[in-house]
Amino acid sequence: MYSKQPEPLFLNNANMCIATDLYQLTMIAGYFECKKNHRSTFELFVRNLPEKRSYLIAAGLEQAIYYLKNLKFTGEYLKYLKSLPIFKKVSKDFFDYLRNLRFSGDVYAIPEGTIIFANEPIIRITAPIIETQIIETYLLSMMNYQTLIASKASRVVHAAGGRDVIDFGTRRAHGPQAGVLAARACFIGGCTGTSNVLAAYELGIPPIGTVAHSWVMAYDDEYESYEDFHKVFPDNTILLIDTYDTITGARLATGIGKKLKGVRLDSGDITLLSKKVRRILDNAGLRHVKITASGDLNEYKISHMLDKGAPLDSFGVGTEMVTSKDVPALGGVYKLVEQEKEGRLMPKMKFSEDKATYPAKKQVYRFLNNQGMFKKDIVGLVDEVFDANPLLLPVMNKGKLLYKIPTVQQIQRLAKKNISLLPDRFKNLDCKALYPVKISKGLKQVRDKTKRSKGKK
Amino acid sequence: MYSKQPEPLFLNNANMCIATDLYQLTMIAGYFECKKNHRSTFELFVRNLPEKRSYLIAAGLEQAIYYLKNLKFTGEYLKYLKSLPIFKKVSKDFFDYLRNLRFSGDVYAIPEGTIIFANEPIIRITAPIIETQIIETYLLSMMNYQTLIASKASRVVHAAGGRDVIDFGTRRAHGPQAGVLAARACFIGGCTGTSNVLAAYELGIPPIGTVAHSWVMAYDDEYESYEDFHKVFPDNTILLIDTYDTITGARLATGIGKKLKGVRLDSGDITLLSKKVRRILDNAGLRHVKITASGDLNEYKISHMLDKGAPLDSFGVGTEMVTSKDVPALGGVYKLVEQEKEGRLMPKMKFSEDKATYPAKKQVYRFLNNQGMFKKDIVGLVDEVFDANPLLLPVMNKGKLLYKIPTVQQIQRLAKKNISLLPDRFKNLDCKALYPVKISKGLKQVRDKTKRSKGKK
Repeated sequence: MYSKQPEPLFLNNANMCIATDLYQLTMIAGYFECKKNHRSTFELFVRNLPEKRSYLIAAGLEQAIYYLKNLKFTGEYLKYLKSLPIFKKVSKDFFDYLRNLRFSGDVYAIPEGTIIFANEPIIRITAPIIETQIIETYLLSMMNYQTLIASKASRVVHAAGGRDVIDFGTRRAHGPQAGVLAARACFIGGCTGTSNVLAAYELGIPPIGTVAHSWVMAYDDEYESYEDFHKVFPDNTILLIDTYDTITGARLATGIGKKLKGVRLDSGDITLLSKKVRRILDNAGLRHVKITASGDLNEYKISHMLDKGAPLDSFGVGTEMVTSKDVPALGGVYKLVEQEKEGRLMPKMKFSEDKATYPAKKQVYRFLNNQGMFKKDIVGLVDEVFDANPLLLPVMNKGKLLYKIPTVQQIQRLAKKNISLLPDRFKNLDCKALYPVKISKGLKQVRDKTKRSKGKK
Repeated sequence: MYSKQPEPLFLNNANMCIATDLYQLTMIAGYFECKKNHRSTFELFVRNLPEKRSYLIAAGLEQAIYYLKNLKFTGEYLKYLKSLPIFKKVSKDFFDYLRNLRFSGDVYAIPEGTIIFANEPIIRITAPIIETQIIETYLLSMMNYQTLIASKASRVVHAAGGRDVIDFGTRRAHGPQAGVLAARACFIGGCTGTSNVLAAYELGIPPIGTVAHSWVMAYDDEYESYEDFHKVFPDNTILLIDTYDTITGARLATGIGKKLKGVRLDSGDITLLSKKVRRILDNAGLRHVKITASGDLNEYKISHMLDKGAPLDSFGVGTEMVTSKDVPALGGVYKLVEQEKEGRLMPKMKFSEDKATYPAKKQVYRFLNNQGMFKKDIVGLVDEVFDANPLLLPVMNKGKLLYKIPTVQQIQRLAKKNISLLPDRFKNLDCKALYPVKISKGLKQVRDKTKRSKGKK
């Protein structure tokens, strides 16, 4: 099969440079004009896990890396920025600086597909503050969304208990591009394929699909629509049988015979209908024919249908998965944690009510128990030594890529491995369980010292 | 100010052709092979309004038009499709047909910015079914999302009661491209600007922004950070005062003097803090200084703060608006309603449980009361005559654009006009009110006849 993966999705846009918030541009102009372009470290992390989520699956790094590698302010956009009244007192030197700006920083990140928890930096970036600042908006948008969806998909896949889950969500995603990013993140979270052909093409993952109601409606006779489809797709005859009446549809579908591959139910009481349809298929000697369910499914509905004994073989999941409907946004933040001034490293933190942060460059250490299962994490300083795996790996050094970017298939395998090592109580769909993430002694000391230096207790 | 609006956002991608669900491609291959490429009409509409929504604001048409005008299957993508096992029995003729395919249909649509209700077609497309089918996924994704967000923004703007609302959402949008689409939709819904510079550039709308906490944190001294910012942006000094302590921040900010333009509060009890900050500013003779609030705001919080007398002048709204967090997906659907066979028009409908549709080409007629306010709508047949404004206007004829695409500023004005004509009970944030949308006699007759012809009652 033809497949293509030269560059990440949708990121060959020259306009990436201004895909940012205006305040990033005012701040970097300010840093430049005030000679405050100190080497700085920012970390991206989630403060609190969303409701019912006991873990997240990191995703979006590949696109983040591509963005960093290719960031460049070009003529048309510089001209636009110069024209904005807010920049009227900003010197020509700043815009010249911007024109020559390339990302030159050091990047550490937790590989995509890794399970992560609250307060664990997913990516840590060290560079002159102009570079670390300007990239915030894009990084957050890309990593927040993909992490949100990979995590949601993982729940749906868990509910399906080994049955295939296919992403059907593009039509309800937040725009066509979000549909492609969703397909990628769903695959990382364990889906076996996507209906989105562009995503399949870009990522080399299986495109999946058969027919919609309009196929059946385009014929005066339902069975003729089935026969015609079978003629063109003899090895992929999966029929949608609920356009008029599911039971009639199932009986008609058996007319295709042994070559029928599957039927899809998209409406009504799917648990009840699937049992009846299974009986119709079995009685016609079509035990091999699979039943797929779709239609506003989520992890709860799938789990409920399977508990009630619905004989379903796979699930097409759309809206609820690609919008993470119960929790449609991930509150990842990106915070300054350290600056280098006159050769000294100064830890930095924020004290705002409920939004305080931990200062200094951090590392996440993951401890396993005797059975090799995940036991606890410690968020510590980079130079602390623990007998555990550090999760943040070197990705870029002085703007150069050090990291071999894995394929999305490798990322999916890593995620599966991670899920298998996570104790079951963290996979409960209804109850949030708190995975032990401790703050190291060293990090606490730095925080207390930083607080004291600001006159806080 | 430099501004640019040659082509709609992010749509200059050659890969649009396969930005679709696989089943659209299998179906069109089937129609081709089975010689069923009949002229067909599809309509896009929302079956039920989401909870708490009494109206929607149509958005996304400009991008839909651009997509239709530019749809073209190019070599690389055709090669990929041919390589997929599912297409192995499909003839070379089909792929040749695909290579030459351009959108040649007729399009009617309700202009962006118009208030719409359930069961009202937003866009109606008539073309050979291969063309009407292949475009479904992209159209739904684009129009569902922008309509969802324009409608949400309209609620937030309503809650702000004339005060400015600015889109701050890109970092929590579903990817960077969704952030740009959201900025557009929020502007249509009544926002005065966006923090997203790319959206501002593309759409010619005001980019808005000042500083983040990292600006303040990058200085050892908070006041020095204020002074420096003021030096570079003397006419746009809006300071973020909650990094360490809001009250201290406010007192320090007064040091800037008369040229201070505004302060922003991003955390804590904003109602209480804004009152204290207002007093500090007023006592310092800075009555003209505006107070902006941000930080996970939505229509309910804004309404609540204003009810409690919070002296706020504008709002930066992010996550909740750009994800429409309480209702993060719009269930727009796109359904076959009519086919032409052997010179005869055949109405088409779906009978699935809870998903039945109305057949035939429709028009929406909007009736005004004596005061010129919206009174009721009738969804009827295109050839019925009513003394009311038809909302669906001709957009394309045989693939040619007839319609003068309005600017986003014109669309915003139309939306404001529409909102002003909608009676207040439909703007209540908490209670859904049912706007009267009647089905015409003619349409009911066609539906009953179509049902009878399928043996349904």
